[in-house]
Amino acid sequence: MYTRLYNARILTMAGDMQPIWGEIWIENDQIIYVGEPKPSEIHWDTERNLCGNLVLPGFKNAHTHSAMTFLRSYADDLPLQDWLTKQVFPMEAKLTEEHIYHLSKLAILEYLTSGITANFDMYLTPDSIVQASIDTGFRTVLTGAVNDFSQSAALVGEWYQKYNGYHPLISFELGFHAEYTTSRGILEDLAALAVLYHAPVYTHNSETASEVRSCIEKTGMTPTQYLDSLHLFDYGGGGYHCVHVTAEDIDIFRRRGMSVITNPASNLKLASGIAPVQALLDAGVNLAIGTDGPASNNCLDMFREMFLTTALAKVRENDAAAVDANAVLHMATVGGARAMRLTDCETLTAGSQADLIVLDLNQPNMQPMNNLTKNVVYSGSKQNVVLTMIAGVIRYENGSFDVGEDPEEIFAKANEITRQLRAQ
Amino acid sequence: MYTRLYNARILTMAGDMQPIWGEIWIENDQIIYVGEPKPSEIHWDTERNLCGNLVLPGFKNAHTHSAMTFLRSYADDLPLQDWLTKQVFPMEAKLTEEHIYHLSKLAILEYLTSGITANFDMYLTPDSIVQASIDTGFRTVLTGAVNDFSQSAALVGEWYQKYNGYHPLISFELGFHAEYTTSRGILEDLAALAVLYHAPVYTHNSETASEVRSCIEKTGMTPTQYLDSLHLFDYGGGGYHCVHVTAEDIDIFRRRGMSVITNPASNLKLASGIAPVQALLDAGVNLAIGTDGPASNNCLDMFREMFLTTALAKVRENDAAAVDANAVLHMATVGGARAMRLTDCETLTAGSQADLIVLDLNQPNMQPMNNLTKNVVYSGSKQNVVLTMIAGVIRYENGSFDVGEDPEEIFAKANEITRQLRAQ
Repeated sequence: MYTRLYNARILTMAGDMQPIWGEIWIENDQIIYVGEPKPSEIHWDTERNLCGNLVLPGFKNAHTHSAMTFLRSYADDLPLQDWLTKQVFPMEAKLTEEHIYHLSKLAILEYLTSGITANFDMYLTPDSIVQASIDTGFRTVLTGAVNDFSQSAALVGEWYQKYNGYHPLISFELGFHAEYTTSRGILEDLAALAVLYHAPVYTHNSETASEVRSCIEKTGMTPTQYLDSLHLFDYGGGGYHCVHVTAEDIDIFRRRGMSVITNPASNLKLASGIAPVQALLDAGVNLAIGTDGPASNNCLDMFREMFLTTALAKVRENDAAAVDANAVLHMATVGGARAMRLTDCETLTAGSQADLIVLDLNQPNMQPMNNLTKNVVYSGSKQNVVLTMIAGVIRYENGSFDVGEDPEEIFAKANEITRQLRAQ
Repeated sequence: MYTRLYNARILTMAGDMQPIWGEIWIENDQIIYVGEPKPSEIHWDTERNLCGNLVLPGFKNAHTHSAMTFLRSYADDLPLQDWLTKQVFPMEAKLTEEHIYHLSKLAILEYLTSGITANFDMYLTPDSIVQASIDTGFRTVLTGAVNDFSQSAALVGEWYQKYNGYHPLISFELGFHAEYTTSRGILEDLAALAVLYHAPVYTHNSETASEVRSCIEKTGMTPTQYLDSLHLFDYGGGGYHCVHVTAEDIDIFRRRGMSVITNPASNLKLASGIAPVQALLDAGVNLAIGTDGPASNNCLDMFREMFLTTALAKVRENDAAAVDANAVLHMATVGGARAMRLTDCETLTAGSQADLIVLDLNQPNMQPMNNLTKNVVYSGSKQNVVLTMIAGVIRYENGSFDVGEDPEEIFAKANEITRQLRAQ
């Protein structure tokens, strides 16, 4: 299968931030050429004249809980503890594998509309999430969510073995829910796995001020310092949220080559705070962006997150020059791919996976064209996404999906599951 | 001309926040019926089966500087003073009436894509803005922008007389740029006009902390107290931004029946701060939402502003229950109409102007339908706007515009003007 996208502005994210005008050639799931128009004897199965529209690498949603779509708009406007204990946990306790399968598919549809080509998903069990991603053609990196109440270090180790190499769209990373939900024994078992596999470890980290306070009271250390002292990060890894990290924590992230995944909308909506993104950038830490789950955001929209990442940094630092648009676009693409170890999905270059999106510039919010990357980050919207391709397959184009099932059916199932769970 | 929208979920904003299922009948520019399906002998010129999609009053963009589209993505990531003095002011000095006409049209296209049916526009001169709105069929309330460097109280008075009653889509309110740009003599002249016409007065107010500090140093009063002492607000009015208002200021807003127009994205991007929206709500002050101009936001997107209004209140108050979705939706529709004195554009009820929008619920971000108003505020997007109607005329539908000129021409003119101004 050969695909050619031509007459395009292409932001490869491999060089400077200036789009080139040219074309992209794809063989099966791989990019084989990016550059100026040139003759070819290839018989193209699929061609698209992009009429000057902008191609860039797909966004990587580097932290989410996809299947929580059923809780969207169910339990908002509540204090965090009530939200978790009265609404989220009791509903989640009723979920089956089949529920998680359909609810994950709903999230995948939404990712496609927002130009997201891969997610870093943490949820109760991996099996049905893996199946939902394979069936829809979506790329998913899973991470373990072991804690005192679900999963186990042994299970996470099994999944790590099973799901790496299982399917080209699927990979698995070691991970646990959070320091405050996971006792030391489990953490030590997980650290042993990290050392055994030379593998990075991921977790929710320093999301709220009270979480950090409690950890210091208990261990004399911040969560980052405590977890690092247990050797969890000997081979790197990453932290989701990291709103309340200290300068010493940031230094650990830097030294260990770890990533921070920021989740600005969720941190606002749950009143957690604003992450120190500028300080992390200054320290040279790899940054990525996530939507968090649909129960706490509630939108799975990378454009919202990108604007928030820069805008919140500006108000936090009291400096309108903080965290510029190019830095944000880097986080949403290259930074995400690095955090998720999707090394062949970082840029649009020959040899990379064909995970890419096309943005319609022929819309009022993209005009005038003073600066394309600023337009994308500051005024871009899901409305501009006209094509989303994963592993060489167009999964979303001009509002239509190609995911192996009618979206209306996926919506109907999500509504039916939600009704069932609420009635139980 | 008779129009019928049927098979719709209708959120009238007149009663509780539960949508009804039924239809809307429109005669010329006016709604004549909203309710359950019933027989009629009317010959319909236009009919739309909305297939269960959601109709609600159009959003009111209650503070903007539309023609600043030419500065979008031109001067971002700069400290406020550099942005204003090195980029904005020198470029604005070159603008002609014809430039403002075309640049305002570009903004109007963007309003339509975001479900905005009216704007409260403050800019250098009103004539070409009025013409752009009339020519595109857009509803605009203008406000004076007198200050020490442009316009005059006398001119603002003339425009007030000229543009109220000039055209059904146009009205004009007294206004000045800001306390810090306008000397006392001009303010007193404007206050005399307010008293003469029994008219409200609008201005940028307490946008930055330094503006408030300077006013206190100069007058011993906050901007709100100082302006009120000059009788500018004897007949009400409103403040744009109001990030740094005190409890005493809020009490003046309440007593004078004034409106606060919040501009959350702009306040972040220019590092101005987060407005005390919950305190204003608690005091019973009418609240509205504005995008501010495209140079400081940069998107003219009411969905972004609605999410930010609630999310920033939550993090500011450290309370995930602050400023709920229904309150935000009220600000974006009814509150905006009240701030702009568009009393016949508040709700979808017989006798009101047919200014309304249709949101596509058949999209992943609107599923499942646990709560429609929360879905709109927390996960809604421009992508969901499938129809925008102003004064009974469909101006935007399924991505196509009906504004008397080809959008491509408007884009081309905006780019040409921008090139010219940058080259001069």
